[in-house]
Amino acid sequence: MPKKNSTPQQLMELKPIGILESCFQEKFGTPRQPGLVPGAQSKLRILPQYAPAHSLDGLSGFSHVWLLCWFHMSTSKTFLPKIHPPRLKGRKVGVFASRSPHRPNPIGLSLARLERVEGDTVYLSGADLINGTPILDIKPYLPDYDAAAGARAGWAEQNAFPELEVEFSPQGRADVERVESAGYAGFGRLVADTLRHDPRNSRDKAQMKEGFDMGFFLASHDVHFSVKGSVATVLRVESGAKFEKKFRREKS
Amino acid sequence: MPKKNSTPQQLMELKPIGILESCFQEKFGTPRQPGLVPGAQSKLRILPQYAPAHSLDGLSGFSHVWLLCWFHMSTSKTFLPKIHPPRLKGRKVGVFASRSPHRPNPIGLSLARLERVEGDTVYLSGADLINGTPILDIKPYLPDYDAAAGARAGWAEQNAFPELEVEFSPQGRADVERVESAGYAGFGRLVADTLRHDPRNSRDKAQMKEGFDMGFFLASHDVHFSVKGSVATVLRVESGAKFEKKFRREKS
Repeated sequence: MPKKNSTPQQLMELKPIGILESCFQEKFGTPRQPGLVPGAQSKLRILPQYAPAHSLDGLSGFSHVWLLCWFHMSTSKTFLPKIHPPRLKGRKVGVFASRSPHRPNPIGLSLARLERVEGDTVYLSGADLINGTPILDIKPYLPDYDAAAGARAGWAEQNAFPELEVEFSPQGRADVERVESAGYAGFGRLVADTLRHDPRNSRDKAQMKEGFDMGFFLASHDVHFSVKGSVATVLRVESGAKFEKKFRREKS
Repeated sequence: MPKKNSTPQQLMELKPIGILESCFQEKFGTPRQPGLVPGAQSKLRILPQYAPAHSLDGLSGFSHVWLLCWFHMSTSKTFLPKIHPPRLKGRKVGVFASRSPHRPNPIGLSLARLERVEGDTVYLSGADLINGTPILDIKPYLPDYDAAAGARAGWAEQNAFPELEVEFSPQGRADVERVESAGYAGFGRLVADTLRHDPRNSRDKAQMKEGFDMGFFLASHDVHFSVKGSVATVLRVESGAKFEKKFRREKS
């Protein structure tokens, strides 16, 4: 086969086109795939050097976009060729057979619904990305080429994500109503959708303890819940003026 | 909204996980979207440092994969916020409303059919990528999250790619049969599918000239064709022992 590799070695360096503002404030509680939490809102302001008025022209006619992002919260120091997908509860698969953030090039691919474009800002919903994530690219979703008919999903097919039933304690219900009446429409649904997909790490014994009080930040609120059996209960919602990293493992 | 941006500025640098070997040898003739030429074969050998025996484990159960790649043949020197999509014949759209390779981060996203995994090598079909393309990542296609129901494709919806009818001259037919009987099953179909989507650049007057003799390399063959009206004729297929860049604009 003839070769055509006369191009000089190119430096493959990336620069963000913008930083995502997302309702998810930390890894814990961020959905593990896009589309699981349709009410999750985020927005992306395109940096002025990318001439948003021009580079976004024509985007608003698309209903969905791909976000390419840099997994900036990934703490991997060395390459591990196998990872533990949350839904395999201990079993491992190759990193290229997964969408794990721990990969040779920590680039994420996330399908989001395009709500609207306003000036230099793209409003999105359903993305599974953390607040502060550097975005590398927006590409329109092209249904003719991006949807594979009759695709087989390998190991993921027989291993659906576990789902929890979600209920609210009286305090949790009152707190959610307070947040909603302060202007955050759909907050209760957002909380319930987030918990329904079980944010816990099944390999973390503390998190998996029955009735263990856990929390995660969602927008500017601190949501506390516990799980018993297959039921997650929203215990309370605090106004999270201060966002601190929580050390969940040491807490129990 | 509480901020969590205490992570130090990370260098966003990429390294290839392998270099794609594709039947498409140059930009001219390479399909403009994945899936248009199902018989297009390519293969990716994962570099030994990524422990292919482990990192590919579990991949073979998936029918489709995303290839993330570096557009190494892109010649853009400066950022242009608008591009000319081939199917808009002159009209421009914003780069983020397109899948053009000329973008702030020249990363491509291509859906390919996974044929098989053999040792360190992934065999693919339908990719729209040139031989020698650095591959950055393989991610399994997850139909539950990657297919958007009822998606709207913006400007692309009303502007299908133009299609040509493809016929073979007696010489072209004989040449294709020779290639096929030498062991390249499906070569004629590959040539026809490639031409059907009109590889010409509608803004290039030389290429658009009626009956102009043009060629492109496909695997190790040099395919010549011309277009009259909406019919492309395969004129002949030469065995392209030598692959040279062609200067199509100056030729007419």
